[in-house]
Amino acid sequence: MLRTHTCGELRIEHINESVTLCGWVQKVRDKGGMLWVDLRDRYGITQLLFEEGSTAEELLTTARSLGREFVIKASGVVTERYAKNENIATGDIEIKVESLDILNASEVPPFIIEDKTDGGEDLRMKYRYLDLRRNEVREKLQLRSRLAIATRNYLANEGFIEVETPVLIKSTPEGARDFVVPSRMNPGEFYALPQSPQTFKQLLMVSGLDRYFQIVKCFRDEDLRADRQPEFTQIDCEMAFVTREDILGMFEQMVRSLFKEIKGIEFTEFPMMTYAEAMKRYGSDKPDIRFEMEFVELNEVARNKGFNVFDQAELVVGICAKGCAEYTRKQLDALTDFVRRPQIGAKGLVYAKCNADGSFKSSVDKFYNQEDLKTWAEAAGAQSGDLLLVLSGKTNQVRKQLNELRLHLGTELGLRDNDVYKPLWVVDFPLLELDEETGQYHAMHHPFTSPKKEDFDMLDESPGEVRANAYDMVINGVEIGGGSIRIHDRATQQLMFKHLGFTEDEAKAQFGFLMDAFEYGAPPHGGIAFGFDRLCAMFGGTESIRDYIAFPKNTSGRDVMIDSPSPIAEEQLVELGVKLR
Amino acid sequence: MLRTHTCGELRIEHINESVTLCGWVQKVRDKGGMLWVDLRDRYGITQLLFEEGSTAEELLTTARSLGREFVIKASGVVTERYAKNENIATGDIEIKVESLDILNASEVPPFIIEDKTDGGEDLRMKYRYLDLRRNEVREKLQLRSRLAIATRNYLANEGFIEVETPVLIKSTPEGARDFVVPSRMNPGEFYALPQSPQTFKQLLMVSGLDRYFQIVKCFRDEDLRADRQPEFTQIDCEMAFVTREDILGMFEQMVRSLFKEIKGIEFTEFPMMTYAEAMKRYGSDKPDIRFEMEFVELNEVARNKGFNVFDQAELVVGICAKGCAEYTRKQLDALTDFVRRPQIGAKGLVYAKCNADGSFKSSVDKFYNQEDLKTWAEAAGAQSGDLLLVLSGKTNQVRKQLNELRLHLGTELGLRDNDVYKPLWVVDFPLLELDEETGQYHAMHHPFTSPKKEDFDMLDESPGEVRANAYDMVINGVEIGGGSIRIHDRATQQLMFKHLGFTEDEAKAQFGFLMDAFEYGAPPHGGIAFGFDRLCAMFGGTESIRDYIAFPKNTSGRDVMIDSPSPIAEEQLVELGVKLR
Repeated sequence: MLRTHTCGELRIEHINESVTLCGWVQKVRDKGGMLWVDLRDRYGITQLLFEEGSTAEELLTTARSLGREFVIKASGVVTERYAKNENIATGDIEIKVESLDILNASEVPPFIIEDKTDGGEDLRMKYRYLDLRRNEVREKLQLRSRLAIATRNYLANEGFIEVETPVLIKSTPEGARDFVVPSRMNPGEFYALPQSPQTFKQLLMVSGLDRYFQIVKCFRDEDLRADRQPEFTQIDCEMAFVTREDILGMFEQMVRSLFKEIKGIEFTEFPMMTYAEAMKRYGSDKPDIRFEMEFVELNEVARNKGFNVFDQAELVVGICAKGCAEYTRKQLDALTDFVRRPQIGAKGLVYAKCNADGSFKSSVDKFYNQEDLKTWAEAAGAQSGDLLLVLSGKTNQVRKQLNELRLHLGTELGLRDNDVYKPLWVVDFPLLELDEETGQYHAMHHPFTSPKKEDFDMLDESPGEVRANAYDMVINGVEIGGGSIRIHDRATQQLMFKHLGFTEDEAKAQFGFLMDAFEYGAPPHGGIAFGFDRLCAMFGGTESIRDYIAFPKNTSGRDVMIDSPSPIAEEQLVELGVKLR
Repeated sequence: MLRTHTCGELRIEHINESVTLCGWVQKVRDKGGMLWVDLRDRYGITQLLFEEGSTAEELLTTARSLGREFVIKASGVVTERYAKNENIATGDIEIKVESLDILNASEVPPFIIEDKTDGGEDLRMKYRYLDLRRNEVREKLQLRSRLAIATRNYLANEGFIEVETPVLIKSTPEGARDFVVPSRMNPGEFYALPQSPQTFKQLLMVSGLDRYFQIVKCFRDEDLRADRQPEFTQIDCEMAFVTREDILGMFEQMVRSLFKEIKGIEFTEFPMMTYAEAMKRYGSDKPDIRFEMEFVELNEVARNKGFNVFDQAELVVGICAKGCAEYTRKQLDALTDFVRRPQIGAKGLVYAKCNADGSFKSSVDKFYNQEDLKTWAEAAGAQSGDLLLVLSGKTNQVRKQLNELRLHLGTELGLRDNDVYKPLWVVDFPLLELDEETGQYHAMHHPFTSPKKEDFDMLDESPGEVRANAYDMVINGVEIGGGSIRIHDRATQQLMFKHLGFTEDEAKAQFGFLMDAFEYGAPPHGGIAFGFDRLCAMFGGTESIRDYIAFPKNTSGRDVMIDSPSPIAEEQLVELGVKLR
């Protein structure tokens, strides 16, 4: 190594040792007679000292020529510092430099390489290699690396075999869009990049691998919302001869173990809730249960009092904001504006304050007297000082709207602490979802999810009511994983494809290999996949996944650093047998 | 779990326990009064017993209906076997079955699921999920999984951070062919799949990550030889502030540690050889040093004796086959035919036998007398009973030819034992290779490899003689890894591109981001990449990599199981902005 030590390693016990360090110039302080350089590498910062009189003139000149981000190699003797710096691990010592090499100069960087930088998002993405020098960004990649290793070791210890499934697979019209790859050797034909290794991991179960996992890149060519990436990483797992409880148990244990190992957090509870219950209590299939503020259905007490809006609503439902009775008109208007935003789409918001003196004040006092409002408060378990917020409308819509309001209030009231983690299983999702435009059912999860046995008979008559043997792991309102017990026989799989509107030929052309495999002794099996980027962000205590990806793409799917995608040469197109439209 | 134990787990101490097993029917033996079923899963085989009289009639009927590869669940009591089977770990016991469920029936499989199968390659690839049920295939995937975990843990312990680099990158005309991916969001533009994460790992060094690794899929759209795959896996590594010796030391240690952990083998030696020496002594840049049979250059002793062929040759070079003086005319002719095959292309083969009586017999006795031949033998260190085999011609060609002959003889003489492992570093490769057709130089490794400092001045005048600071790890004649110390400054990188025939604009368009990065404090760095598929095959003691890949493609790049690549829908092409030619 060009160095004897890293910049994070030297302590008081190294005094008088001759050492060589390499790193980047973080800062130069020139006080005339003395000159200090903060030398930085991945491991820390060490102070270098150059002193007029004792340091050779030539060395001093070189030191004075150093700019930010120069890469240097410095040798010298470890010395105790006069003024110690308790903020850094090497703060007791400095290096009296005896020789200095500039290994590489640096232009002035386009933004400051410090925790607080002056660089905007676009600039930092263009110079991502400089952004990655900042501690807070690098630490996110280090966290990701640790999480990946810990996950793999956990699963390997549980007997899972890591198998790499192919990246060049077959395009299927199902679901979100495939990226495709023209085949030079097979002109007119294309590979697709996998949206997930779903069918392959099922085939591995058919092959008797028993327990499979993979941390694997997946691809989805869809319009990117702020926090989606065209390529993303999954922890993909599958087990044979299991019931739902085996999967939940195994992966609850895995996530518990990761939280313990990486964050020192032990979960006391890991509750389970059905989809139906989650929708009723929180208006969401991924409820944030760090705080209560559960939904209270008020149909019984709020209808038939002459308030037309409620009377005509399918559902009147509210939440109780503890201690918010003193909210001002302005605050209440802001909440009303919040729910009326087009993304949320409520028509209005009804409130009822439970005043400290036991009286009530609502926005619908015209229709509801004190006694009426008291029954609301009782239904909602509201106390003096609390604020009831009520929406009404079609059940599904109003639940979604109230969920947004609940989360918004939770954030506003500081109830969503990033250092608190509340995991949850949500189970028994609907198997199928009706596309109201086309009248066609879609698989809510994917077409390989098995219906619950007890609902199987409803598949023909009321497909929308059939529950799937599917489950999601939710932490703090974020879905970090999901899976299901799979269909493992040809007949059920064919029936499923039929309900999804596949002709027999289509089903065969696209998934014939899987249905064939089911005829050669496919075991019962099920699995789960975790969004690894999201899991990393969760462990990092932040919302955006982008920072946990070394070289992310922007919302147009571009890598602005390497300027990709880009046009390719005409000869290349000819070779591939395609041309541009 | 549907089972209480696996099929590999029960022993004599489990006797009288009630257990439930799941698995595949390997074999049914029906002896009338008694019926045995061998039940198989990933973990082993357990024998099930059904006995007329003590087993319920209904159960017996079900048992008699079982076919090969049916998936069943059987419960019963562990019993000591009358006739023990020492070949399997569960051979002391059997299960007296009390209940039996057929979890899934099976068609008769298209080939026998046993170590020795009757299935041809094509059939096994089409039904790869059945092929993977065979122990010997599954064990290869398990070996791969263990190797991956061990590699990751080794590198993580050495402070390497695992970073996922992007799969959707930028196409460059350099080197072998890119697979490309049309971008729907950026019509007319394409991503490329990486042939290696080379530039990204260098950027990670610029970013100060210090030590990076990744086990990563790479892609190459080239005509597939028997043992190439369009997608393959690398162990990709890079370190900053290193010299060549640091890289060699680190990765020699890694490979030593893997061999010790996985195979219980400790290397006594790990020699280093220059490219020039390897070519001179073995005619190959990846010599198999499990056996000696080194090249002996005979120019001095074999020329100027009137034998025109040798006199006009640039190089006369031979090998000594120990103890082969008794080779028959037929054997010698076979060797001559071997070197005259068009793939090898020698014109003929000269031999000289060192007879037991001290005399010599050669195919060129007309030109060389006993005394002459004695000088050959002395030069070659040949003893009585040995056989000298001599080729001549242009240096590079004749070395390649003799290398083939040496390997062929080594195999024939049983000198290449698959259980013996001899590692080796080959260093100081040429930086550039002349394409004799175009007169253009190509990078032998890739354009980011640094020239050796002491050769740098020759770059303009004799580029072909400049040595690269590059190295390969070779085991048993197979290159399993290679790398180099990289260029880390813009000026040298530009010079390199110039020598490779890039215009300044081309260099900037394709690699501008990397050269820009070099201007912001790029540290000296270097790295290595191992072919993971090949490493697995090496550990498995076989030559073909295909068996170590769960779902390989055939030599036309097809996955015959899922039938990919395949045509895609016209609408999809429209969306992507391309059409077929």
